Amino acid sequence: MTAAQKGTVYLVGAGPGDPELLTLKAVRLLATADLVLHDDLVSAAVMEMVGDHALVMSVGKRCGDANRMRQVDIHTLMVDGARRGLSVVRLKSGDPLIFGRAAEEMDALSEAQIPFEVVPGITAAFAAAAAIACSLTDRRSASSVEFQTGHRCVVGEGQQAEPAGATRVVYMPGRDYRELADAWLSAGDAPELPCCVISRAAQPDQHVQWTTLAELPNQPAVAAPSLLLAGWALARRMPVAHRPVLNPLQRTQTDTTGEQLDGRT
Amino acid sequence: MTAAQKGTVYLVGAGPGDPELLTLKAVRLLATADLVLHDDLVSAAVMEMVGDHALVMSVGKRCGDANRMRQVDIHTLMVDGARRGLSVVRLKSGDPLIFGRAAEEMDALSEAQIPFEVVPGITAAFAAAAAIACSLTDRRSASSVEFQTGHRCVVGEGQQAEPAGATRVVYMPGRDYRELADAWLSAGDAPELPCCVISRAAQPDQHVQWTTLAELPNQPAVAAPSLLLAGWALARRMPVAHRPVLNPLQRTQTDTTGEQLDGRT
Repeated sequence: MTAAQKGTVYLVGAGPGDPELLTLKAVRLLATADLVLHDDLVSAAVMEMVGDHALVMSVGKRCGDANRMRQVDIHTLMVDGARRGLSVVRLKSGDPLIFGRAAEEMDALSEAQIPFEVVPGITAAFAAAAAIACSLTDRRSASSVEFQTGHRCVVGEGQQAEPAGATRVVYMPGRDYRELADAWLSAGDAPELPCCVISRAAQPDQHVQWTTLAELPNQPAVAAPSLLLAGWALARRMPVAHRPVLNPLQRTQTDTTGEQLDGRT
Repeated sequence: MTAAQKGTVYLVGAGPGDPELLTLKAVRLLATADLVLHDDLVSAAVMEMVGDHALVMSVGKRCGDANRMRQVDIHTLMVDGARRGLSVVRLKSGDPLIFGRAAEEMDALSEAQIPFEVVPGITAAFAAAAAIACSLTDRRSASSVEFQTGHRCVVGEGQQAEPAGATRVVYMPGRDYRELADAWLSAGDAPELPCCVISRAAQPDQHVQWTTLAELPNQPAVAAPSLLLAGWALARRMPVAHRPVLNPLQRTQTDTTGEQLDGRT
């Protein structure tokens, strides 16, 4: 195991917050980096893994915060740090290559001819799925999974109807689920579609809220970061009290043929 | 850090193969487990992290192998092991909760009232994305990412047209890409759609093959496990020699508004 190289930038996944879910590589890089530039969402427990000699800066850009750091300032910090011969860790919650600005950051590093490496991390979807012990692609009811974002800062496309066999993971679903629920219902999703809001997955204050698509808009707001899971693959893990009266999964419980069932009523 | 508990089953993600990409939690559990039941695809380097005292069994079920272990046999091994007071690790390549039989295994453990825990791992998609330094959701060209499987053992749904802004990750795409390419072209995808086949991501013999949707059927077979990435988000990372002549991303290079562009010609 070698240390972080001088003059190099590492885009490192911090995982969902539990330091036990850091990779060995992330731990080694955090312990040896000279400069650590981290998102707001990275947990305090993960930040404790940073070596004592490191310079640490928060470069979070929260939606609507007038004092937020501009993306170009983050680029400058990374490039200048590496040019001064420091080993730089750009620490991002979850995995670096989903729902963040890693693409722009890698473009800036490439243009400045700074060597860089991406170190994957556990993205929130898998921490959330582990929290409720639910396969994202239970072959009896889901053949694929789609990760999308509901963040209001992002200009999204219109919601589309998903095949019934696709599990959906919505990152940053926001505090008002009505718009999302209305869009899915309009696109033909069943009101009974199982949904689960998981707040702060894999952290000590993790919170799980089961519901259905029809009831989703009535869910109370939860602490950030949160994630919405939706799909028939969730039905088997749903506590009985929350299961829809019309549970289409009951049809599949005697199925042993391995045939794909779409789980719809 | 505590050791693996006796009488408990841990469904642990082994990640893509590089032991440096194991989580701290996985390392601790592998070092202390009494019984380790692992998939074929778990690398030798990862298996070296298993403690000397552990009983180790391969429970792989390769497609078409007549001597393969039945799923119910794996359930029996897990349940019996835990009932005999062993700490059991069920080690799965990547993350346990995507494209495997974790759902059936958790059902069997629940029915047998065996305590179990899921420990997330780095799934192949993120190792592959890191290998080519490509964001799966570059906001300039991709608003979501979908994980699907092309494995011939799985009865899949018909391919559907994807929104242009979705990156696609196909696990186990098989050795013949023609069927997949034809389905996507028929559904309206452009022949110039950037594609990349990544074989053995994050392992010493990792291999990357860039192509386009039109040329995908002509790609030579690669060593398993492999993964196919497809989408306009890949275009910026594509080596110049492979870029389509009609590169729709050229349109977006001067875009600084943050507006979502669909990247289609």
